Amino acid sequence: MAATRSRFLVDMQGTHDDVDHAAIALHLEQSEFFWLDLHGTDEADLTMLGDLFGFHPLAVEDASHFGQRPKLEDYDDFLLLVAFGANADKDGLVEVHCFLSSRYLVTVHRDDCPTFRDLRMRVAKELIPPAKGALLLYSVVDALVDSFFPELAKLDDRIDDLETGVLKKPDDAQLQAIFRLKRRLITWRKVITPQRDMFARLVKGVVTIPGMTPEMERYYRDLYDHLIRISDLVDSYRDLLTGAMDVYLSTVSNRLNEVMKRLTIVATIFMPLTWIVGFFGMNFGWMVLNVTGWIPFLLLGVVTQVIAVLVMLWLFRRQGWI
Amino acid sequence: MAATRSRFLVDMQGTHDDVDHAAIALHLEQSEFFWLDLHGTDEADLTMLGDLFGFHPLAVEDASHFGQRPKLEDYDDFLLLVAFGANADKDGLVEVHCFLSSRYLVTVHRDDCPTFRDLRMRVAKELIPPAKGALLLYSVVDALVDSFFPELAKLDDRIDDLETGVLKKPDDAQLQAIFRLKRRLITWRKVITPQRDMFARLVKGVVTIPGMTPEMERYYRDLYDHLIRISDLVDSYRDLLTGAMDVYLSTVSNRLNEVMKRLTIVATIFMPLTWIVGFFGMNFGWMVLNVTGWIPFLLLGVVTQVIAVLVMLWLFRRQGWI
Amino acid sequence: MAATRSRFLVDMQGTHDDVDHAAIALHLEQSEFFWLDLHGTDEADLTMLGDLFGFHPLAVEDASHFGQRPKLEDYDDFLLLVAFGANADKDGLVEVHCFLSSRYLVTVHRDDCPTFRDLRMRVAKELIPPAKGALLLYSVVDALVDSFFPELAKLDDRIDDLETGVLKKPDDAQLQAIFRLKRRLITWRKVITPQRDMFARLVKGVVTIPGMTPEMERYYRDLYDHLIRISDLVDSYRDLLTGAMDVYLSTVSNRLNEVMKRLTIVATIFMPLTWIVGFFGMNFGWMVLNVTGWIPFLLLGVVTQVIAVLVMLWLFRRQGWI
Amino acid sequence: MAATRSRFLVDMQGTHDDVDHAAIALHLEQSEFFWLDLHGTDEADLTMLGDLFGFHPLAVEDASHFGQRPKLEDYDDFLLLVAFGANADKDGLVEVHCFLSSRYLVTVHRDDCPTFRDLRMRVAKELIPPAKGALLLYSVVDALVDSFFPELAKLDDRIDDLETGVLKKPDDAQLQAIFRLKRRLITWRKVITPQRDMFARLVKGVVTIPGMTPEMERYYRDLYDHLIRISDLVDSYRDLLTGAMDVYLSTVSNRLNEVMKRLTIVATIFMPLTWIVGFFGMNFGWMVLNVTGWIPFLLLGVVTQVIAVLVMLWLFRRQGWI
Amino acid sequence: MAATRSRFLVDMQGTHDDVDHAAIALHLEQSEFFWLDLHGTDEADLTMLGDLFGFHPLAVEDASHFGQRPKLEDYDDFLLLVAFGANADKDGLVEVHCFLSSRYLVTVHRDDCPTFRDLRMRVAKELIPPAKGALLLYSVVDALVDSFFPELAKLDDRIDDLETGVLKKPDDAQLQAIFRLKRRLITWRKVITPQRDMFARLVKGVVTIPGMTPEMERYYRDLYDHLIRISDLVDSYRDLLTGAMDVYLSTVSNRLNEVMKRLTIVATIFMPLTWIVGFFGMNFGWMVLNVTGWIPFLLLGVVTQVIAVLVMLWLFRRQGWI
Repeated sequence: MAATRSRFLVDMQGTHDDVDHAAIALHLEQSEFFWLDLHGTDEADLTMLGDLFGFHPLAVEDASHFGQRPKLEDYDDFLLLVAFGANADKDGLVEVHCFLSSRYLVTVHRDDCPTFRDLRMRVAKELIPPAKGALLLYSVVDALVDSFFPELAKLDDRIDDLETGVLKKPDDAQLQAIFRLKRRLITWRKVITPQRDMFARLVKGVVTIPGMTPEMERYYRDLYDHLIRISDLVDSYRDLLTGAMDVYLSTVSNRLNEVMKRLTIVATIFMPLTWIVGFFGMNFGWMVLNVTGWIPFLLLGVVTQVIAVLVMLWLFRRQGWI
Repeated sequence: MAATRSRFLVDMQGTHDDVDHAAIALHLEQSEFFWLDLHGTDEADLTMLGDLFGFHPLAVEDASHFGQRPKLEDYDDFLLLVAFGANADKDGLVEVHCFLSSRYLVTVHRDDCPTFRDLRMRVAKELIPPAKGALLLYSVVDALVDSFFPELAKLDDRIDDLETGVLKKPDDAQLQAIFRLKRRLITWRKVITPQRDMFARLVKGVVTIPGMTPEMERYYRDLYDHLIRISDLVDSYRDLLTGAMDVYLSTVSNRLNEVMKRLTIVATIFMPLTWIVGFFGMNFGWMVLNVTGWIPFLLLGVVTQVIAVLVMLWLFRRQGWI
Repeated sequence: MAATRSRFLVDMQGTHDDVDHAAIALHLEQSEFFWLDLHGTDEADLTMLGDLFGFHPLAVEDASHFGQRPKLEDYDDFLLLVAFGANADKDGLVEVHCFLSSRYLVTVHRDDCPTFRDLRMRVAKELIPPAKGALLLYSVVDALVDSFFPELAKLDDRIDDLETGVLKKPDDAQLQAIFRLKRRLITWRKVITPQRDMFARLVKGVVTIPGMTPEMERYYRDLYDHLIRISDLVDSYRDLLTGAMDVYLSTVSNRLNEVMKRLTIVATIFMPLTWIVGFFGMNFGWMVLNVTGWIPFLLLGVVTQVIAVLVMLWLFRRQGWI
Repeated sequence: MAATRSRFLVDMQGTHDDVDHAAIALHLEQSEFFWLDLHGTDEADLTMLGDLFGFHPLAVEDASHFGQRPKLEDYDDFLLLVAFGANADKDGLVEVHCFLSSRYLVTVHRDDCPTFRDLRMRVAKELIPPAKGALLLYSVVDALVDSFFPELAKLDDRIDDLETGVLKKPDDAQLQAIFRLKRRLITWRKVITPQRDMFARLVKGVVTIPGMTPEMERYYRDLYDHLIRISDLVDSYRDLLTGAMDVYLSTVSNRLNEVMKRLTIVATIFMPLTWIVGFFGMNFGWMVLNVTGWIPFLLLGVVTQVIAVLVMLWLFRRQGWI
Repeated sequence: MAATRSRFLVDMQGTHDDVDHAAIALHLEQSEFFWLDLHGTDEADLTMLGDLFGFHPLAVEDASHFGQRPKLEDYDDFLLLVAFGANADKDGLVEVHCFLSSRYLVTVHRDDCPTFRDLRMRVAKELIPPAKGALLLYSVVDALVDSFFPELAKLDDRIDDLETGVLKKPDDAQLQAIFRLKRRLITWRKVITPQRDMFARLVKGVVTIPGMTPEMERYYRDLYDHLIRISDLVDSYRDLLTGAMDVYLSTVSNRLNEVMKRLTIVATIFMPLTWIVGFFGMNFGWMVLNVTGWIPFLLLGVVTQVIAVLVMLWLFRRQGWI
């Protein structure tokens, strides 16, 4: 875990990889505005967040536990925003805690955010000086939100494959896949819905972000729009998976019917035949001695059976079974 | 794709097919009001939207990506309305981005809108001069919304056919049809519900369209009414499809029951008979030697079996099976 | 269709059957208040509604198409109310468009309203002069709303029959009946819910009807109460039908289980027996020659089988199957 | 029915059983406050309610029909409250219409309210003079609401029994019981939800009851609390019954699987054996004549079958079936 | 029960175990602030709550019955808060009634709260003097709310186990486990949802707690946040259990299909073979006498059967069954 821990700091001079606490303290004194990205935190980092930045104990405790819900809380001197993005990992989610004040943005996350790598470059190049914290926060959350789209597209493909597969040949693996995808959607839905509602409150002006301008608001509204779309997609994928499940069950049920029909056909043809040959296999002296020659053999032993088969084929055809 | 790209411009003088950018620029300077319909856009068109018309980058980006939700956004100098219509294509939807200002209406869509052909004629003939942009926007969205009705009527017929078919003889093809129709309804619902809510906001006056009059409002309310009806229809078709699915499953289940009953009848009749003939087929010297003549043959070999069959038929009748 | 078209006019002098357009025009000039009931309309009638009464084109167009949602629209000079009643026809619904002004009430419907016959008598006798349009409108809508109750009572009986029948002996016909009733409820629900909401708005005073008094309001509130009850009934019948469906499926499933148990019992008893008789039917010289006399026949051929049957009966009893 | 009709009157002097109309009229003139409880009403009683008490025709009509929804209506000079209690009868509900004015409380009900017997005693003893109508109304409705709790407790026990029973041995009777309990819950829910909402409006002060004090309000809030709890219980019992149904279906499904496995085991063991004995039962002269002596009998007739059985047992064990 | 009854009193001097009524009365006179924790109450305790503390009869009655919903009621001189925590007992819930005034906090509970033991220590050590009742109440409710998390984590593990188990080998025990967990979630949900809504009202300032400060409010908001998370978790576990149930049913259904396929394969192979051997077992003199020698035996008796088996294997392979 320690290996994957790293601290990035982006300021007007560029990106600093793996800064130490002293450097951060220095920036806090001198920089006009900077972005500190903490990927994985140890005890010392958390202490620093409390002591150096003066964050509220409740906010720091959340950042050490993760597993929070998306939320936006106004702590007088800073704003705490917890947002989620998607990645290709097992649980498919990245939880990022953003602390925004007028002088810095601190982001804390445990899981890797591949999308942040590009963002750091872009921020270091283009956005300096990041005159407004609201713009940087937008860029960060936008990167997180947009990270859902490729994952959703992958999911769409998988559902498509499942739908075709289920109709062609239902097996246990598909069932497991449907179940796994449903689970993923439940997980995503759990964070997407409150994240969307949080931005609804932000867009409606219930909560404000320092450095917000009417132009910036348009961008936040766009973000909100994306979240609604993701939420809609998650809902409709859920419906599709439920549909796939129904089709799976019906197809299995149908196949069972087909199998039983075949068994019935086989049994219905061969049981009477076996009885007929059994009949003439009885050791009754009278029958054994009297029924001889090839004519009775043909008539009783063969023709009866041919007739029986024909009658049954005719019955099956009338049923529409063959 | 390029083959299907085309730009129509309707102004007070009539319809101009496949106008180029220069002509558009000229109209923008001189025409009092015009409608520009872009069916498919290339990079240059998008640039033109940004440069010539001065649309906001976010709005132009949406128009280049499509896959938006129905929305109505007020960009100070123009209004962006994203609306959906139905067509007979695979995903069954046409997404149209409408940019309305006091001087022009620009509509951008990737998929073909057959309903726009008539509309261009009608607009060119009757509605000139389109004194109010709100009226033209109404005509455009009305054409889109009404394009759902024939598709819904087709769907209604197909559901009717499915319902009758499922009860008569359930097969895999019906299952696939139900599933495909459900999918289509999910897709439609995803755009119809927000489109309806968008018009609700418009009718309630939360958002206003330039050039709106009390008389125009009545027409927009009619549009809203149509959207509610479409939304209701989509919901009730959904219920009907769920019902059809239930019937499908029950019918398959019923048929399985019937098949098993038949198998059981066959097995219950022939298994005892086969055992009887097997019994008299045993090679016990005592039996072979002592049971001779036609009387024991008839009594033991034939009458026992006739009795067995009669007993079982009586049992089945008592069960109500035959 | 023409045969079923008819125009009734009720004024202070009594009921006039099959009035022509001229007579209507005369009444429009002279009568203080009248009720015009159009059962089925041709092109000329619709033109009259537009020209003579001056109704808005959108309102007249609705009246020529039907298939509207319940709605209440205020067209400055008249009020348009679309309400639904039940009848015993295939789709079970009557759609009535009511145009109310201070001088007349015009009702337009395509399907027969048996309940209007009595109402015309009653109105002609008792309610003349119908000082207030609100009272006549109440009588008309009350007749429509109350027409749901007998149909719901019939439905209740049918559901009761189905519930008993399904538990006793499930068959395809019940399945179809459940499905048909569900369909009917979906159709009713589609009009009852918005009709109820429309009256909610009316009762809360969001919309007003000309000539409304506090006393009249009590009657409209009673109407609203009836609509809530119908809506509740439709919902609970829906739940009951879903329950009946579940019971149907479980009963079929149960029966299948029973059938399979019987098949298993038959097969489990006769398969070993058939094997035993087959064993002694083998043509091994040693066995044929050595196993003779009636004692081995009894011991090997009969006692073994009796023992086999007893063992299996004991096994089945232990399973609780017989 | 006439036998079960009775009129009780409770005033400051005590309880009067089976008072006649004249006595009621006298009380109406002289008593300061009284409670009239009508259990079953004939035409004369209803006329009295209209003429003597001057109740509104709509209110009296409701009282003669029953089958109303819980409601609270303010008729200027009196308050009409329709409330429901539970009893052990078939439909499990008692509908009580309460007319409260500043001088009397009239309760009308068709079904027996055993809880009212105690209440009359208590009211006659302790509550005289019932200074405030609101207190008496509270006592009446409290008795009704609390009558749900023992019925719900019974239901809880029955669901518990069903749950255990279904897992042990599912049969049709349990299915019917589940269905009957569900039906009862649907019936209760239909009255409990609006009754709860009605008290919500009362507690929030939307509607007021004459003689209401802040202290009385606390009691009404307690009543409201009980109704929420009943509503919660009904909902969770519903969930439990749905769960029990699911378990029922799964258990039946599981049992079917077990039965089929057994059938398959029996068939898979005996079919090959029967074929083997049949093989050696063929009348091929060559085989009959050459395969003699006890060694080939043992090797071919017995050992082959023992091997076949062993192989199949091994296969079943590998499948985990035995 | 008496054995588990105990009264703890925490004041500025420390914790007093098993105080008697006299001691409580003394504290009530002299202590500035104290916490009285009653674990199990007898008649005398309840009388004391009414007489000594002067609590409202309705509040005391609730405390003697339990089975309340989470609620927060303001009784002028004290605040009644009913909150729930989780424990590992059968029904998994602890119901605590908290009476808070400016001078004391009284908590009454029937079930054991293991989390209160630590809290008493902590309160006695650190929180003395508990200047504000709101802080102590927060600590108590926080302990209750947080007691859900370990139970939810256990549940999470169990669901994980079930999901894996169901896919591998579905059996009745898993079905029971799913059902039991669902039941537990229904029980929890019934208290968590209103508890969450109660804190929503508290956080929004609809209800106030004496001694509340802006800083305290942050802590209460944190509590509310935890409740939302618990509520979300309960909902998503419910979805997961429903999914597990679906998988269970599908897997059982799949297995049935497999079993039937095997039965069909066995029957389809051996029935024709048995018929063939039966055919040559018929006692027709002509056949017995003419078909001799090893060549016809091989050709008719063996080769026919080998061919039959090969044909059927080919058919099964074409079906994709083997």
